Amino acid sequence: MRLELLTVGTELLLGLTIDTNSAEIARVLASIGVEITRRTSVGDDRDAIQDAVGAALDRAGTVLVTGGLGPTRDDITKHAVAELLHMPLEFQEEIWHHLVERFRRLGREPAVTNRSQAEVPRGATALPNRWGTAPGLWLETPRGLVIMLPGVPIEMRNLLTHEVVPRLAPRAGSLVVRSRTVRTSAIPESTLAERLGDIEAAVRPLGLAYLPGLEGVDLRLTSWGAEAAESDARLDAGAAELRRRAGAHVYGEGEETLADIVVGLLRARGLTIGVAESCTGGLLGGRLTDVPGSSEVFRGGIIAYDNSVKVGELEVPAELLRLKGAVSEPVALAMAEGVRRRLSVDVGVGITGIAGPGGGTADKPTGTVCLAVAGLGDSHVRQTIFPGSRPEVRARAVQTALFLVRQRLLATQSP
Amino acid sequence: MRLELLTVGTELLLGLTIDTNSAEIARVLASIGVEITRRTSVGDDRDAIQDAVGAALDRAGTVLVTGGLGPTRDDITKHAVAELLHMPLEFQEEIWHHLVERFRRLGREPAVTNRSQAEVPRGATALPNRWGTAPGLWLETPRGLVIMLPGVPIEMRNLLTHEVVPRLAPRAGSLVVRSRTVRTSAIPESTLAERLGDIEAAVRPLGLAYLPGLEGVDLRLTSWGAEAAESDARLDAGAAELRRRAGAHVYGEGEETLADIVVGLLRARGLTIGVAESCTGGLLGGRLTDVPGSSEVFRGGIIAYDNSVKVGELEVPAELLRLKGAVSEPVALAMAEGVRRRLSVDVGVGITGIAGPGGGTADKPTGTVCLAVAGLGDSHVRQTIFPGSRPEVRARAVQTALFLVRQRLLATQSP
Repeated sequence: MRLELLTVGTELLLGLTIDTNSAEIARVLASIGVEITRRTSVGDDRDAIQDAVGAALDRAGTVLVTGGLGPTRDDITKHAVAELLHMPLEFQEEIWHHLVERFRRLGREPAVTNRSQAEVPRGATALPNRWGTAPGLWLETPRGLVIMLPGVPIEMRNLLTHEVVPRLAPRAGSLVVRSRTVRTSAIPESTLAERLGDIEAAVRPLGLAYLPGLEGVDLRLTSWGAEAAESDARLDAGAAELRRRAGAHVYGEGEETLADIVVGLLRARGLTIGVAESCTGGLLGGRLTDVPGSSEVFRGGIIAYDNSVKVGELEVPAELLRLKGAVSEPVALAMAEGVRRRLSVDVGVGITGIAGPGGGTADKPTGTVCLAVAGLGDSHVRQTIFPGSRPEVRARAVQTALFLVRQRLLATQSP
Repeated sequence: MRLELLTVGTELLLGLTIDTNSAEIARVLASIGVEITRRTSVGDDRDAIQDAVGAALDRAGTVLVTGGLGPTRDDITKHAVAELLHMPLEFQEEIWHHLVERFRRLGREPAVTNRSQAEVPRGATALPNRWGTAPGLWLETPRGLVIMLPGVPIEMRNLLTHEVVPRLAPRAGSLVVRSRTVRTSAIPESTLAERLGDIEAAVRPLGLAYLPGLEGVDLRLTSWGAEAAESDARLDAGAAELRRRAGAHVYGEGEETLADIVVGLLRARGLTIGVAESCTGGLLGGRLTDVPGSSEVFRGGIIAYDNSVKVGELEVPAELLRLKGAVSEPVALAMAEGVRRRLSVDVGVGITGIAGPGGGTADKPTGTVCLAVAGLGDSHVRQTIFPGSRPEVRARAVQTALFLVRQRLLATQSP
């Protein structure tokens, strides 16, 4: 089954609104065996909409249209399509009734303009929208199938999942396109590639994409055009092979974050953690406390941006700062040990570095960061130079600190 | 001048890659008077590329194509277009020479496959790419103008700015589409709308869009199809009117962040700041230290996630915690005053709240956050209930804390 996507909206054409719907729809439909052959965006213009819908039907036989179903004068998608396909609009009392009810629950009354949202092209099926005011529409016509969804992302997503996928899946082909992402950290892309060797051959026919980002390098495996069960089996085997080759650098899959993993490991061991941050200014604490329930393990931290705070709150010896400099392994260690002692936590993390843009020297260039972990066996410290801009250096430093904590947690786990 | 955008890439069609180029190109071109009439994405497929380029030329006369110019077998955009327009590819020694030089500077040698990147359709102009390996291409043909740019965002952006805009601007119409964004904070969208009154009429013919986000509500003014000078004058006047009506809730324009503003105000006054964070876990420190040069004003902070840290490090009386609860105005105040004293800073900020998803009570529902500022005249504290998920509540709390600091800085400014 071939399908084209069409998004309608002048603001999209001007780049004032980013089209996030298309990518989401494409992933969902490809995973159930629909082949997406083209994506088009046109403005809120009757001729352009009709031309695009007509051409899409001629080429692919099915078109999914989003946007332009609202109650304002700009919203002409439904009218344009109804006219193109000679399906005059008819007012449906039942839809209107639901709309009035919805407004009543919110303590409001629908405006006159909302009445147009209860109009449906003759012969079309309205797809009930419990998340907003514009129903989706399903039009079986002699020229092909037209599906219309509102452009509001949450409404689009829910209608797609609950109304469109169940109707399309039985007509879709048995060959699906599915992906799985294996997440790695603390290893540069080129080193990872060397380590993986001729992985492309090993995972074939799966495709492999390296997606480097601030949290590390994600490895995306894609199964193209296979049966669903075979596709999932191949992805399982491919992910296992990636894990085997990348070893300890793999920390998770999909949406899992390193902070989730670290908090989970700490919780399982009943350990508490505290942070001492200089160049990251609180971002590590921020990442750990992003995890719901992190209060079970995260006690707090000291943001020691200024050296006076390193000395006064973390008890880093002033002499050490003078001799070694604030960005040095001994200072990172002293910070980690200081916060561990100070907050009476099991694990202390210290971060000190030069995030830039200024501040670098020949000896310690911008991007130099020292990371230390105290309290899991012997203390560990590592000096690294991170590439990138100020926010990139900071984000990489936080991610690598989390990786180091995970590493120490795994190394000290009882067998 | 009308133009269509075409992006090429099978991964785009499947939603595996997000197309950020199109929106950026559209904004840049609209601002110099080019009318973008359609955006299309097709896969790495010769027939689909030729069909899309041909149709775009027939409709609009000009098409800008991105993607598929790399050295691998997937990259067939140039070949497909050259064939469609009967402009056979010719190897250009000079482009190859630049490519070899570029690789040499990076200590590498080009692969055999890179040779194809030095091939140019006969009669086309190569647009030199100093940011990557694939030159842009400019094809004046009897059917219209075809511009091809690489899909790598940084290469696309630089070629667009330095090579495409100067060539297109003289042919573009004199009517441009330009936008300006006025940023507000600490006021809900509906209250802001009431306060702005019939602003739509006042700024006409400018369009106005409310863009609510985690940093507040941005107000985007758009001037549609006016001469450049008139357009800019209207946007100036419209922004001034928005500022007049929204008052102190406006903190900046465009890309300016509230953290930039606060750091700037503190620096101008020679004041230092420290933070005491519970539910935000370090995110306020993170935001302040995002600003390069913030070390002049930001000393550090205490992340007091656990109550033991509030008592031990911030000297919040245990009795107060017991009587009022950790999420209370007196505790937020004690935290702000504690960190101010502790780190010897001029301004102390305290944040304590319930970020969720759990932890709410009938009395203090999830989203309840107390924010305090000490050291700028009398201490100030405010209790608010923020809507949204855990990350949303935390981001809104940080932004509102910054807003409160700005407010106190402005209120205590000497005249």
